[in-house]
Amino acid sequence: LNRIKASGLKLRFCTNETQATREKFVKKLQGMGFDISVAEVTAPAPAACRLLRERSLRPHLLVHNDLVPEFAEIDKANPNCVVIGDAAENFTYANLNEAFRVLIGMEKPVLISLGRGRYYKETDGLKLDVGAYMKALEYACDVQAEVVGKPAKTFFESALAEMGVPAQQAIMIGDDIVNDVGGAQRCGMRALQVRTGKYRSVHPLHP
Amino acid sequence: LNRIKASGLKLRFCTNETQATREKFVKKLQGMGFDISVAEVTAPAPAACRLLRERSLRPHLLVHNDLVPEFAEIDKANPNCVVIGDAAENFTYANLNEAFRVLIGMEKPVLISLGRGRYYKETDGLKLDVGAYMKALEYACDVQAEVVGKPAKTFFESALAEMGVPAQQAIMIGDDIVNDVGGAQRCGMRALQVRTGKYRSVHPLHP
Repeated sequence: LNRIKASGLKLRFCTNETQATREKFVKKLQGMGFDISVAEVTAPAPAACRLLRERSLRPHLLVHNDLVPEFAEIDKANPNCVVIGDAAENFTYANLNEAFRVLIGMEKPVLISLGRGRYYKETDGLKLDVGAYMKALEYACDVQAEVVGKPAKTFFESALAEMGVPAQQAIMIGDDIVNDVGGAQRCGMRALQVRTGKYRSVHPLHP
Repeated sequence: LNRIKASGLKLRFCTNETQATREKFVKKLQGMGFDISVAEVTAPAPAACRLLRERSLRPHLLVHNDLVPEFAEIDKANPNCVVIGDAAENFTYANLNEAFRVLIGMEKPVLISLGRGRYYKETDGLKLDVGAYMKALEYACDVQAEVVGKPAKTFFESALAEMGVPAQQAIMIGDDIVNDVGGAQRCGMRALQVRTGKYRSVHPLHP
């Protein structure tokens, strides 16, 4: 990372983290010794905020408590869409029904998802990721969610636009064959899969 | 109903009720004055039990507390499949993760669903039905659930077998255009939609 920065190459950190604000995410990495600032991070929540502003959407949030500050400046009164992230403990029966009622009450339900991950591993075991709950709401309301995190094309395009670099001159480095490598390639970028993190030689843990 | 019974026509009550045992369901209807007994009811839970026995499957149950007695005689030790019903308040984050871990730990995950309803209405509002949670697990584990309730063909075939009547000589009467009418018709039966219950003139509440 230091070599990339020293070389003068432009750099963005692309994360699907939706359990914390960028501030918190950056602090964690800084604590591990990484040279990183909030302005260098592309994440689903700010991408969703851009989309909400562009289309004058007022979200009902079904997200992790620690992510709520990212939506501080967004009008959330009288919601006309639902934004779903990895809400973890907030994925209660009551909260899912509430988000569902907002959607089914709309003439044309709008569901924005901060990712489409199937599951992930935590110290106490595997957990269902946002994609599973997104599918539940999609089915119940007969809608298709708009995904703003990786591997969505718009997500990589945002990162490229923020750097001012065309896709053909950029390379994505990541451990996830679908979300990192596949998403970037579909966007016209080259991509490199590292054999660390969630990488598995036989099949990926988090496809 | 009394006229049908008096005429000597054979009769089965086909319900997708998975929030209570047949005993409880029958008591409720008897309390309303209906002439009905447990032996006349075809319901998803006993259909699932038949399937579990036939294939030597030991279920992990994600169902409503009141339905558990239907599975009393089924071996549930060391589960090798998941049975999902309308678990209502039991659809907690922890319970969904637990069911998911049972499935993802299997070489070939087996998910049996007691229905595929999208949602239903209760006095305190609309609720997500079992189909939504089924879709969440299907997506997370990349499997397709086996549905044993209406509109599954096997469900209607069970009811016909119990009566000893061929499909062409039977008629299904129900309020749900998909689960009752569609399911029965795909099974070779004729079907009649009543304009009571969930019937709506424009579009069905519970498609």
